[in-house]
Amino acid sequence: MQHAETTMTTTKTKPARTPMPMNGVDTPTLFATLDAVRAQPELAKFCFRATNTWVQGTHSRSRIETFDGAGEARRHAREFTCDADHPEVLVGRDQAPTPVEFVLHALAGCLTAGIGNIAAARGVTLYEVESTVEGDIDLRGILGISKEVRNGYREIRVRFKVRGDAPPEKLRDIVEQSRSRSAVYDILTGGVPVKLSVDAG
Amino acid sequence: MQHAETTMTTTKTKPARTPMPMNGVDTPTLFATLDAVRAQPELAKFCFRATNTWVQGTHSRSRIETFDGAGEARRHAREFTCDADHPEVLVGRDQAPTPVEFVLHALAGCLTAGIGNIAAARGVTLYEVESTVEGDIDLRGILGISKEVRNGYREIRVRFKVRGDAPPEKLRDIVEQSRSRSAVYDILTGGVPVKLSVDAG
Repeated sequence: MQHAETTMTTTKTKPARTPMPMNGVDTPTLFATLDAVRAQPELAKFCFRATNTWVQGTHSRSRIETFDGAGEARRHAREFTCDADHPEVLVGRDQAPTPVEFVLHALAGCLTAGIGNIAAARGVTLYEVESTVEGDIDLRGILGISKEVRNGYREIRVRFKVRGDAPPEKLRDIVEQSRSRSAVYDILTGGVPVKLSVDAG
Repeated sequence: MQHAETTMTTTKTKPARTPMPMNGVDTPTLFATLDAVRAQPELAKFCFRATNTWVQGTHSRSRIETFDGAGEARRHAREFTCDADHPEVLVGRDQAPTPVEFVLHALAGCLTAGIGNIAAARGVTLYEVESTVEGDIDLRGILGISKEVRNGYREIRVRFKVRGDAPPEKLRDIVEQSRSRSAVYDILTGGVPVKLSVDAG
């Protein structure tokens, strides 16, 4: 333990007792939130929503603003809107990404947010996180041409590139921890019951 | 069969032999696409992708532009970008919807695109399609507070309001047909294998 460098390497293997904000993560507030939910588990119940309006053809627009959580009705800082459409090769007008591409964005965004939080909690400064998410789909399912082919993705592949001030093994552990705690990864790999009702007045 | 009105009602119960474009759907091209894929099933193989870059904290940005399909590498009309973040109550900076909200948008967009296409194929003019999609999640899973609670949505509910020039039963059948052919509905209810690799150089 003669060198400051050696000491730093040693202490970096555990989270600091009083974590500092880093990677743009307010780590003390994150830890306080965890304590609050541990003490009052009903704060963990959230309901998210999107309201979608058909524009024309395969083009629609979602508004995302309100949600319920931590015991009350809440609002995002502003109303977000996002469109979806089909590309021209699928007879859409290509005004926006396809719905299945938003699934890939959701997965990348969820895993990456987790990497940001977990790295901060472990005292690791991130330099770069990039990912490419691909999904294979055989459209004979949704086109009704084959009953043997499923409608959705056959497989999704995620490739991460992560750089930070920690050894590769530690960076890989952060990605793995994010995967094991990811809401969207769990939704996609585990499936969710979906209830559908129709007002066709 | 004395009245033109009666005749129209009768013919409307079957798709026209030469469907007209309607609801913003180029129905003749849609039917030609179906015939092309029937004749050459390998055209149905698509690969969609998103490339995501971490911005800071829980905020990231996806670029969606290229995909492979119908036998070649393709590009959307333009590069689409969309961000994801966590709200302040979850210690994010609320710069964009959460990843789990994008899952709801994807589901609404996919079902609604199908409704547009299927209504056109069946000769039904749509006046209005609105949907609200909600998902319940107990954050004790992703916060690592309880091992009994799953990370993802416990349940998703979709409520459609559909208006068009057809009886309610026919409009409901269109929604049901869209559900049975929806890629995102299948992804969410059936699950998908996800492979993850990490370059942590």
